[in-house]
Amino acid sequence: MMVTKKDIANFLGISRTSVSLALNNAPNSTISEETKNKILNAARELGYRDSEISPKLCFIIYNRAENDPRYINDLKVVEESASRHNYRVIYMSIKASYLELQKLQKFLQGQEVEGVIVSGDIDDQLVELIEKSNVPYVFYGGIQRENVNSIVNDDKKIAYEATKYLISLGHRKIALFSGRLDLQIHRLNIEGYKQALKEARIPLDNSLIQISGEEDGYELCSRMQALGIAYSAVFCVNTIMQFGALQRLKESGVNVPHDVSLIGSGISEIVRVSVPHLTTMYVGPEEKELLVTRLLDIINEKAETPQSIYISNFELFEGGTVTCKNKI
Amino acid sequence: MMVTKKDIANFLGISRTSVSLALNNAPNSTISEETKNKILNAARELGYRDSEISPKLCFIIYNRAENDPRYINDLKVVEESASRHNYRVIYMSIKASYLELQKLQKFLQGQEVEGVIVSGDIDDQLVELIEKSNVPYVFYGGIQRENVNSIVNDDKKIAYEATKYLISLGHRKIALFSGRLDLQIHRLNIEGYKQALKEARIPLDNSLIQISGEEDGYELCSRMQALGIAYSAVFCVNTIMQFGALQRLKESGVNVPHDVSLIGSGISEIVRVSVPHLTTMYVGPEEKELLVTRLLDIINEKAETPQSIYISNFELFEGGTVTCKNKI
Repeated sequence: MMVTKKDIANFLGISRTSVSLALNNAPNSTISEETKNKILNAARELGYRDSEISPKLCFIIYNRAENDPRYINDLKVVEESASRHNYRVIYMSIKASYLELQKLQKFLQGQEVEGVIVSGDIDDQLVELIEKSNVPYVFYGGIQRENVNSIVNDDKKIAYEATKYLISLGHRKIALFSGRLDLQIHRLNIEGYKQALKEARIPLDNSLIQISGEEDGYELCSRMQALGIAYSAVFCVNTIMQFGALQRLKESGVNVPHDVSLIGSGISEIVRVSVPHLTTMYVGPEEKELLVTRLLDIINEKAETPQSIYISNFELFEGGTVTCKNKI
Repeated sequence: MMVTKKDIANFLGISRTSVSLALNNAPNSTISEETKNKILNAARELGYRDSEISPKLCFIIYNRAENDPRYINDLKVVEESASRHNYRVIYMSIKASYLELQKLQKFLQGQEVEGVIVSGDIDDQLVELIEKSNVPYVFYGGIQRENVNSIVNDDKKIAYEATKYLISLGHRKIALFSGRLDLQIHRLNIEGYKQALKEARIPLDNSLIQISGEEDGYELCSRMQALGIAYSAVFCVNTIMQFGALQRLKESGVNVPHDVSLIGSGISEIVRVSVPHLTTMYVGPEEKELLVTRLLDIINEKAETPQSIYISNFELFEGGTVTCKNKI
């Protein structure tokens, strides 16, 4: 029978928390040296054997109000990959508030985790906090910065490949549904879209690029109809917009994919819940493991100076929203 | 400037991992007593100050092949609630394989976490492993068992309340869309549904109870149409089935909610992504905090003998899939 911390606590008639603090060797904890020695002696006497402390990584989702399915998918990949390297993952959701940032700072100072992976709406105050903590880190997504360790999806290439795929199926009137253009990801998506058209010598028609600040694909399809703009396919910058577009097209009796093909970017629950499944370009789990392997390289000082690394291999999820251009 | 573990490692010219193991006081680690003493002395000399180790809970999702949005929502609530009690959360996804269970066992023996919350498809081997580990635990959902600490949604009541709500809006031909009946949750849902009908003196019509092993709501709506069974409302045992049903009804030109109302059970991403939003009964975040507060009571020995606790307060998410019975 293994001796537990609880056994030690019961033996001495003290709290389990004190036992934990003493055995974890927390130097500036509130328990006295005397109590600490008593605990360590009792642990020896009772034959307490701690296992090796498992090394830990921390996965932080920063400043997201809702459960964003994209980040949850990242957590899954990080946990699986970390587990293969015998790391445990502490999950934290941190808002951009003074109180939460203070808490995070204190936690990182505790040096309980070997490294952190941060995803979400990364801003300057967070970057500064993480850098000052001296804890190895990797940022995922968001705007790339100089001299910062980050992993960035090649958003230009994903739009390029999605558009190229539609072109290969005979589409020429290809729309682009995007969110706000002050977000770099959307500007890069437009670049990739334009590049694919240019390579195929399809003249750019700016009326086919439609922006919705609310990322509302449903509204964009209504708008195209109201404006009388013809199109046979759309690249949507994310699956939420794509799903909204699909709903609107179905309601107006437009057959997807036979009348209009829809391709999206990213993978999440709705891709498979949707009827038909959504066709999307996405970063496969193998590529995403880079989040963990890169962090481990930084922890083990195999990495050079801080830099951004691009993910530029994408996979195609073949749902049911894309087909060849209707010949009629 | 704070002294870090890395500083100590550099000072001694040894690995960071050795420093971590020594400072974490891991007794049966592979480093020698001599090295350990060297590290502890260096730590003192350099003025290293560890912060207090934050107490940790572990949230385990057991034996789920895919990212199930229900469990992810639980993780969010657990992390927020634990954070308010100054606990950190280690997230683990464990499959029912020998290797993964071994890993879990070893991890729990390390006594790094004060307690565990387990969600998912809990089975006997997992219950046994957790109980033997002597780590305080709470199981969430799944089949209830004797002498085990668990928190269980009152699945009978949730179906009862959803059905009662439809009845209060004038519906009488209310269908029930359910999954396999070897799952207790589905049998309890049927009980609640029957009770609500009985109280309203609506005769039970067994043809209105439709089962899909694949939990395919889309198929169930087609089936009702093929069989010519009339209904004005449906209680769906989960939101995935409800969403499938909505897709099928829209395709056949049936107006939701005016021709058919759909109420579901649970909350997840698709509730708000759906057009219209899904109307559902669900366990609110305040109720779900019980997962953490109950575990803390068990950790602090405020809890009596192991027992199941029911969550029986539900909230209504008023989406756009339910309305009064059409008078025509």
